[in-house]
Amino acid sequence: MVWVCSFLPAQDKDEVVIKNLFEEALSSDIAYQNLRHLCEHIGPRLCGSAQAAAAVEYTKQLMENMGLDAVFLQRVEVPHWVDGEIEAVVVSPLCGTTEVKAYALGLSVGTGEEGIEAEVIEVKTFEEMKDLGEDKIAGKIVFFNQPMNPKLLNPLRAYSEVSKYRGQGAKEAARYRAVAAIVRSLNLTIDEYPHTGGMRYDPSIRKIPAAAICTQHAELLSAWLKKDPHLKFRLKMDCQTLPDAVSHNVIGEIKGNELPDEIIVVGAHLDSWHKGSGAHDDGAGCVHAVEVLRLFKKLDIKPRHTIRAVLYQDEEINQTGGKEYAEQARKKNEKHLVALESDGGGDLPTGFSIDADEPVIAKLQSFRELLIPYGLYRMEKGYGGVDIGPLKAQGVPLIGLTTNLQRYMEYHHSSKDTFDKINRRELHMGAASLASLVYLLDRHGLEK
Amino acid sequence: MVWVCSFLPAQDKDEVVIKNLFEEALSSDIAYQNLRHLCEHIGPRLCGSAQAAAAVEYTKQLMENMGLDAVFLQRVEVPHWVDGEIEAVVVSPLCGTTEVKAYALGLSVGTGEEGIEAEVIEVKTFEEMKDLGEDKIAGKIVFFNQPMNPKLLNPLRAYSEVSKYRGQGAKEAARYRAVAAIVRSLNLTIDEYPHTGGMRYDPSIRKIPAAAICTQHAELLSAWLKKDPHLKFRLKMDCQTLPDAVSHNVIGEIKGNELPDEIIVVGAHLDSWHKGSGAHDDGAGCVHAVEVLRLFKKLDIKPRHTIRAVLYQDEEINQTGGKEYAEQARKKNEKHLVALESDGGGDLPTGFSIDADEPVIAKLQSFRELLIPYGLYRMEKGYGGVDIGPLKAQGVPLIGLTTNLQRYMEYHHSSKDTFDKINRRELHMGAASLASLVYLLDRHGLEK
Repeated sequence: MVWVCSFLPAQDKDEVVIKNLFEEALSSDIAYQNLRHLCEHIGPRLCGSAQAAAAVEYTKQLMENMGLDAVFLQRVEVPHWVDGEIEAVVVSPLCGTTEVKAYALGLSVGTGEEGIEAEVIEVKTFEEMKDLGEDKIAGKIVFFNQPMNPKLLNPLRAYSEVSKYRGQGAKEAARYRAVAAIVRSLNLTIDEYPHTGGMRYDPSIRKIPAAAICTQHAELLSAWLKKDPHLKFRLKMDCQTLPDAVSHNVIGEIKGNELPDEIIVVGAHLDSWHKGSGAHDDGAGCVHAVEVLRLFKKLDIKPRHTIRAVLYQDEEINQTGGKEYAEQARKKNEKHLVALESDGGGDLPTGFSIDADEPVIAKLQSFRELLIPYGLYRMEKGYGGVDIGPLKAQGVPLIGLTTNLQRYMEYHHSSKDTFDKINRRELHMGAASLASLVYLLDRHGLEK
Repeated sequence: MVWVCSFLPAQDKDEVVIKNLFEEALSSDIAYQNLRHLCEHIGPRLCGSAQAAAAVEYTKQLMENMGLDAVFLQRVEVPHWVDGEIEAVVVSPLCGTTEVKAYALGLSVGTGEEGIEAEVIEVKTFEEMKDLGEDKIAGKIVFFNQPMNPKLLNPLRAYSEVSKYRGQGAKEAARYRAVAAIVRSLNLTIDEYPHTGGMRYDPSIRKIPAAAICTQHAELLSAWLKKDPHLKFRLKMDCQTLPDAVSHNVIGEIKGNELPDEIIVVGAHLDSWHKGSGAHDDGAGCVHAVEVLRLFKKLDIKPRHTIRAVLYQDEEINQTGGKEYAEQARKKNEKHLVALESDGGGDLPTGFSIDADEPVIAKLQSFRELLIPYGLYRMEKGYGGVDIGPLKAQGVPLIGLTTNLQRYMEYHHSSKDTFDKINRRELHMGAASLASLVYLLDRHGLEK
């Protein structure tokens, strides 16, 4: 137990508690080992998979062993898409034949046993595709080769600018009767690692297969197309969508001793893509959320509000976990003071991004001086998070933990997102950052 | 060339130039490839070594190819200590015999052909050693087993607290007639990588050999000593100090077009320890300094003051490079407006630490608003840097680039300090950060 100096003036006490939270987090090994288990013993946690179920069991057990006031599961019906083998080959009589590193995009249909072999038409934008028109596109594979902009300081901004080609490329290409879509991986580095991710079909348009190819092979394909515009791309994918599966959000809480019916929720998504082991996306966030509760218990902080950690299902595909959580909150008439999310990986925390009205932002900015010594210099209007997003309609202020994202796109949605990319101290600083803000919100509320 | 909007108001123009500096740095590969060459083609650069000489040649050439106004070498006589084989073994009839991962400390004497075999006495502090006294210590090996404090947010603070055992352990132990000193590596992680570093003898006391052992074996040795206080430690080291060698600081500059006799110097140290390849310590700083000049040339920024990059020799042992640079500046009556240093590795830049008077700090803090969007939130009184330190006596304000140090101690002075630990974007952000501050200092000076 850490002795909290209760006779100190309020501001000083806050300082002491935050210092204690960071000291406990930095000198412990627990969150790091929890993440190791999630990544190395359970592995990738695509929603609907056996590993996703094992992760539900493991994290429930973990929270049950922490002596919380309640631990429970929340039923969610999740999409059940399964990957399979993929074969992607460029065949050019002029340039040669080469296998291409590729992943099916999440929810993509397969190609069937026989696969697809077709000419490729490269575009950078939807406008370019429109200009080419159906004549030039029908029967071909559209290759969306728009790189992320390396000049943008925030890689997430660069990501957001071009992720539409992954998400909507197949749907848009199908309008022009393309037979498949291949997309340059969302990665700032030229390497051999494909990055998968979600995509959407339009029910009124034919579903065509969609895959991401690694940046190195995107460069190669583009160069070869200049020499041999009639080269062929052969794509065979076994992926398929099965009937929805039953899964669960995992929830643990410490009851508030003054306002138990007002909830501060801090969460992350337990599902991941099936490549890598979801260490940064979003295993790190999951152990952050659990560690917030552990830190409160360890420092014997008795919160005024109920502090709840939620590990959501299915952020990556249909966001059913976040939607179900908000729907249940609405039905039960639960009051959420504020919702926090950690979905920026386990690298160095830098502050918070707030999706709320001005007075809430002003209140949060009044905490800045306490947080800057810990490198948490960001406290500004911005995006909250995907899983807490559905709570916005209930008027809940949303807060996202911001982190150093400079390395994030290298592993995001790829086989590189593994436990060895995690730095223990930075991971634990993320948890302490969230715990510090939760503590301040609990103690001072959101009123002026 | 980047078009600099010269008709914009001053503040806006600064914003545009800083944006251009970051965009150019982030979309280039040059500094990263320069560092790759320094680490992977030249390798470790212990002062006095052939690789240190090759690094002088390479970086001189590099700057000569950049079309600078002047590139020159500055002669420095540097210590020439050479490592050799090391054998470290714990021999205990009760616990077993095990080889220990160890490195000689820089400047340590060797053990001679026959080596040393002696009992070990473990202490955490100099006070503990004093309490034990000569009776208990004479003829033994003193084992300084003080871990770094993981609770401290700033690992450099934790490092500073305990680095005296590495630097002065042998000297202090010799006062009590110990036969050697072994020191727990300065590393927050328990692993098998020894970390070397500098040490000092007292000319009036017998020189005894000194080595660092990895944290994992420090833990093991401590545990075994509890079971078998009479176990023996066998140490054999071939290291020796040769006569001083001739080496050089490498200097390149862009002449100022208004105040060519006032110099803004930005530097780093070219030497490194002999394990690893000095990627973070301080190859990163060297390519930062060179990149500042490249960015100025590329963006066609014509500085008012002379902008000088200096790659100093021998930071790690006797700091002769920094001392010589300051001595020459004094002799030539050179005026330095300000001296900047990058010696915190190539990870994410976070701001600047200023060793100067209040008015200078206030002036620098007036730049904060321009720098915070790039994550440079730190602008506070603090340490400048080892190599620029000797300029302080001439009244030169000193500024150190601060970086995220959470990972730094894992590789610092160990065989892990290699190029693969470098992140290109973070490395280049460091260079752009320095270039931005150099630009602001050049444009606005240090007057109120």
